[in-house]
Amino acid sequence: MSSSVIREILKVTQSPDVISFAGGLPAPELFPVEAVRQAASTVLDRYGAAALQYSTTEGHLPLRQWLAERAGITPDHVQIMTGSQQGLDLIGKMLIGEGDVVLVEAPTYLGALQSFNPYGPAYTQMATDEGGIDLDALEVQLAGLQQAGRSAKLLYCVPNFQNPTGRTLSLERRRRLVELTARFGVVVLEDDPYGSLRFTGEALPSLYELALGSCGGPDGSHVIYSGSFSKVLVPGLRDAWVQAAGPMIRKLVQAKQGADLHTPTFNQMIVTELVEEVMPAQIERVKALYGARAQTMMAQMKAHFPAGVSHTVPEGGMFLWVTLPESIDTTALLLKAVERRVAFVPGAPFFALGGGHNTLRLSFSSANDGQIGRGIEALGRTITEALG
Amino acid sequence: MSSSVIREILKVTQSPDVISFAGGLPAPELFPVEAVRQAASTVLDRYGAAALQYSTTEGHLPLRQWLAERAGITPDHVQIMTGSQQGLDLIGKMLIGEGDVVLVEAPTYLGALQSFNPYGPAYTQMATDEGGIDLDALEVQLAGLQQAGRSAKLLYCVPNFQNPTGRTLSLERRRRLVELTARFGVVVLEDDPYGSLRFTGEALPSLYELALGSCGGPDGSHVIYSGSFSKVLVPGLRDAWVQAAGPMIRKLVQAKQGADLHTPTFNQMIVTELVEEVMPAQIERVKALYGARAQTMMAQMKAHFPAGVSHTVPEGGMFLWVTLPESIDTTALLLKAVERRVAFVPGAPFFALGGGHNTLRLSFSSANDGQIGRGIEALGRTITEALG
Repeated sequence: MSSSVIREILKVTQSPDVISFAGGLPAPELFPVEAVRQAASTVLDRYGAAALQYSTTEGHLPLRQWLAERAGITPDHVQIMTGSQQGLDLIGKMLIGEGDVVLVEAPTYLGALQSFNPYGPAYTQMATDEGGIDLDALEVQLAGLQQAGRSAKLLYCVPNFQNPTGRTLSLERRRRLVELTARFGVVVLEDDPYGSLRFTGEALPSLYELALGSCGGPDGSHVIYSGSFSKVLVPGLRDAWVQAAGPMIRKLVQAKQGADLHTPTFNQMIVTELVEEVMPAQIERVKALYGARAQTMMAQMKAHFPAGVSHTVPEGGMFLWVTLPESIDTTALLLKAVERRVAFVPGAPFFALGGGHNTLRLSFSSANDGQIGRGIEALGRTITEALG
Repeated sequence: MSSSVIREILKVTQSPDVISFAGGLPAPELFPVEAVRQAASTVLDRYGAAALQYSTTEGHLPLRQWLAERAGITPDHVQIMTGSQQGLDLIGKMLIGEGDVVLVEAPTYLGALQSFNPYGPAYTQMATDEGGIDLDALEVQLAGLQQAGRSAKLLYCVPNFQNPTGRTLSLERRRRLVELTARFGVVVLEDDPYGSLRFTGEALPSLYELALGSCGGPDGSHVIYSGSFSKVLVPGLRDAWVQAAGPMIRKLVQAKQGADLHTPTFNQMIVTELVEEVMPAQIERVKALYGARAQTMMAQMKAHFPAGVSHTVPEGGMFLWVTLPESIDTTALLLKAVERRVAFVPGAPFFALGGGHNTLRLSFSSANDGQIGRGIEALGRTITEALG
């Protein structure tokens, strides 16, 4: 399996002399370490032993209330998860049976495939372009399934600053996606870990918000929203959540009970302490840094990458996507790049059904400007050399 | 489904004027709150942002090393889990296919059934008596399966102070269980959350230890061991682990990657701080308290329960199991008991294939002596009334 080969190669890149654009790590220099220390202490003062006791599967009520208020829904529509990865797993477990059609972007988030795979989905790739999912092509696919007497069980997508491409779905396409999936009876899983990290352009409503407006409120929504504190606070506490219709939340509660009983009580309480006082300023710092680093990376690519190489221009998030001439296989390129002490993730594993041999993902979140300069220069040389 | 009815009834019992022997909550008054506060701070001093960053799926290496050393194995045989419930889920996902035979005790831990159910097991109940699993009956079952050209995929059991019965499997039966399952090629999942909480009698080797000795070391073991910090430190950090053969651990790593990426970094580091300095004394305090409370409960049952009611005599853990005359249905009894402001869990849901209508589980871990006295007296009256 190619993805495990890549994992082996990427292990090498953990040595400190390799500049890695491979990982999806948030910049640790911005983590609010002192605020977490203070919040941990405050939580133990306020709740005592209850902060360390078993708690409800649904999650810490004040945190669910805060999330619900922000989204204009009630806590009954919010389930806390142990990282958004758990949401993907449990939604897969709840919805996907052996052979069920699951629509995913080409390319899509690799971790979602890892979550869904054990449940035996039959993936169908959705074509994408610079604006994300191609809605004309999707409508043809959905109609084709319907004519064949089938339907898609789930459509998974990352509308904001997608992992791996950094692309964002336009407002018009969002509206059409919500309408199309409602019409064809397809549940949508909207994965939105990066939505708050927009460093340029206008914020767009989530698919979930659009569905609330058009489908008769939170219990009529066919869109499930997955949010996370990993990229806007810290990832190491593993706190995330899902918003969905009440009946779906109740099934998720049952699934989560069997999966880990509940998300750590202490961690949920710490996050609750931070969402009001710490998170807003934290998000501003993160956006400023990532926006600057994305600019640096794109400038360096312009300076050092040969002709015939193109890349996406993300408006937020942590990733951009590079397309090389067809003659280049990026898995082979990675070996050469690692020799020059620079790393990326080849694009192929992000395609559920193959493709993308000449693509690669770069993360601009965790390398500093100097590293970006040296790393992109080294990568440019590697590509130039590979082109002959 | 009867278990959701029971859950609804038990929700009522969360009001403070109900004495609940229903939950499996560790005694919060013993939680080392100040030690956790100190450990959290120490961890942030020592690791800084790394304590809040993504970390490896396998788990925090110093914690895996500590666990491995104690068990005479290497960290390659240890996987950290987000609560032992996650271990049950991922082992179920890894091993159980639709229709596979899974052997469980009658009665067994309800949470294990919840974890396994989504994978479609065909449960076979193992008969039990005061000494736990009946090995003669099991040998007949295994031979019968073999003759039918089938085999059991997994045997799940709790050898120490079982949940729900409080029973402990004898050394002789442990040896025979390890030998039998090796001979018939059955993987054993040994769930041991309470093993350190023995308040009377001699400690016995785990099935895993016996398998290490008889099956050629840690990579030859057909026993998977599931351990937890929930009952010996605190449950709200959700830290547990699995010990298994290397190839099995590598599959579990992959399954866990799709399930929650990794257990919270911060929590694993906090637990690592506590295992040497805090946990040993903590275990002594917990054992002393639970041992005393078990004694109190048994004395009160002797004083207040009518003739024809029997109960197990646990040597550790948190639970004991009560068998009432056949004429009593404990689900109906629960409604009457709650009217008298006392709660328990009816026994029926702990049986994978039915049975146990006249049994119930009592937890002696979290009620104090006064509550135990009043609660058992009220329960005794409820039973007496129900008997005529």
